[in-house]
Amino acid sequence: MEFSSKLLQNAVNEMSQLPGIGKRTALRLVLHLLRQPPTQTEYLVNALRELRTEIKFCKKCHSISDIEICEICSNPNRKNTVICVVEDIRDVMAIEATSQYRGLYHVLGGKISPLDGIGPQDLTIQSLLDKVKSGDVQELIFALSATMEGDTTNFYIYKQLEGTAVKISTIARGIGVNDELEYADEVTLGRSIINRVPFENALKNS
Amino acid sequence: MEFSSKLLQNAVNEMSQLPGIGKRTALRLVLHLLRQPPTQTEYLVNALRELRTEIKFCKKCHSISDIEICEICSNPNRKNTVICVVEDIRDVMAIEATSQYRGLYHVLGGKISPLDGIGPQDLTIQSLLDKVKSGDVQELIFALSATMEGDTTNFYIYKQLEGTAVKISTIARGIGVNDELEYADEVTLGRSIINRVPFENALKNS
Ligand SMILES: [Zn+2]
Ligand SMILES: [Zn+2]
Repeated sequence: MEFSSKLLQNAVNEMSQLPGIGKRTALRLVLHLLRQPPTQTEYLVNALRELRTEIKFCKKCHSISDIEICEICSNPNRKNTVICVVEDIRDVMAIEATSQYRGLYHVLGGKISPLDGIGPQDLTIQSLLDKVKSGDVQELIFALSATMEGDTTNFYIYKQLEGTAVKISTIARGIGVNDELEYADEVTLGRSIINRVPFENALKNS
Repeated sequence: MEFSSKLLQNAVNEMSQLPGIGKRTALRLVLHLLRQPPTQTEYLVNALRELRTEIKFCKKCHSISDIEICEICSNPNRKNTVICVVEDIRDVMAIEATSQYRGLYHVLGGKISPLDGIGPQDLTIQSLLDKVKSGDVQELIFALSATMEGDTTNFYIYKQLEGTAVKISTIARGIGVNDELEYADEVTLGRSIINRVPFENALKNS
């Protein structure tokens, strides 16, 4: 792409650094901003800058939080003996939206990925291990994505906790509640069968 | 979506003002920025702010340009009697990339769209009419999209220039050079037949 303006080129280049945003999309977004009042760009720019410079993470679960201990961690009605291990705040939001979980979270900030140069020390794994070893935690629920990186991360944490009394589980994988069997991928359908649930349990949940 | 952080919510809200970026995508982009070094956000923010505050448009064709008269308008080798009328700078870039056009451009900055509250006075139409009426222009080539708004805009300009000697054409629409007939939509295929070209012309262009 050849640009007649350095300013435009610069904005498009920076915008296209974002994942999933190619040069064409970046140009479309930037031209959109140029057609809107300058205040819109100002609000966007200020919101991004403030977030990036003033961002804080909960001291306990490492989720994004404007206060030192987030609302979930400081809620006395939540069960602090169960910790759900997730990759980022999107997972926390998704699980919270179900209203089915009353334990706490631990946000790793990513998954172990040697290819991307992400090792255990780049995540909040040590803080999780310390938490478990300090005693109160009875159960960890792994809720990472079922990818190689997710499995590697689960296994790494599992190995580090060998010999402790903590119970470790992973969230159930299977056919979505409203999905048709014929459209499901084989691996998922296979897991659904292997991890079948007593019918009485299914009755209770419905 | 419920956010545990006002800063995060704010950034996601502003990001999702961009066309085609929903709340979920906005959250993904914003979390990506949080994982990158702060400099990446800084570069993005600075590039957008600079573009929006320092943006300049060519005094002649109204395309985005860092200099007063853009490189195309000030190029003595270009034919200044032919003007291609386009919606925005993306169209200029697309046509320039073909290396087939040696005339000038006029960037309208949009299309007439009563539904979106965009009238002729919101575009650079008056400047185009003045240019044509001042005398040098022999041909206008309409290259707006073949939508209702594009047709309306073409027709509006055409009516305003009734009685002048300027020749008005529109770019040819038809089946793409490498497209299969069976996959083409009917309207396009119909236009391809109606606007068929003498075979000798086609030979010359290949
Ligand atoms: Zn917390
Ligand atoms: Zn120009």
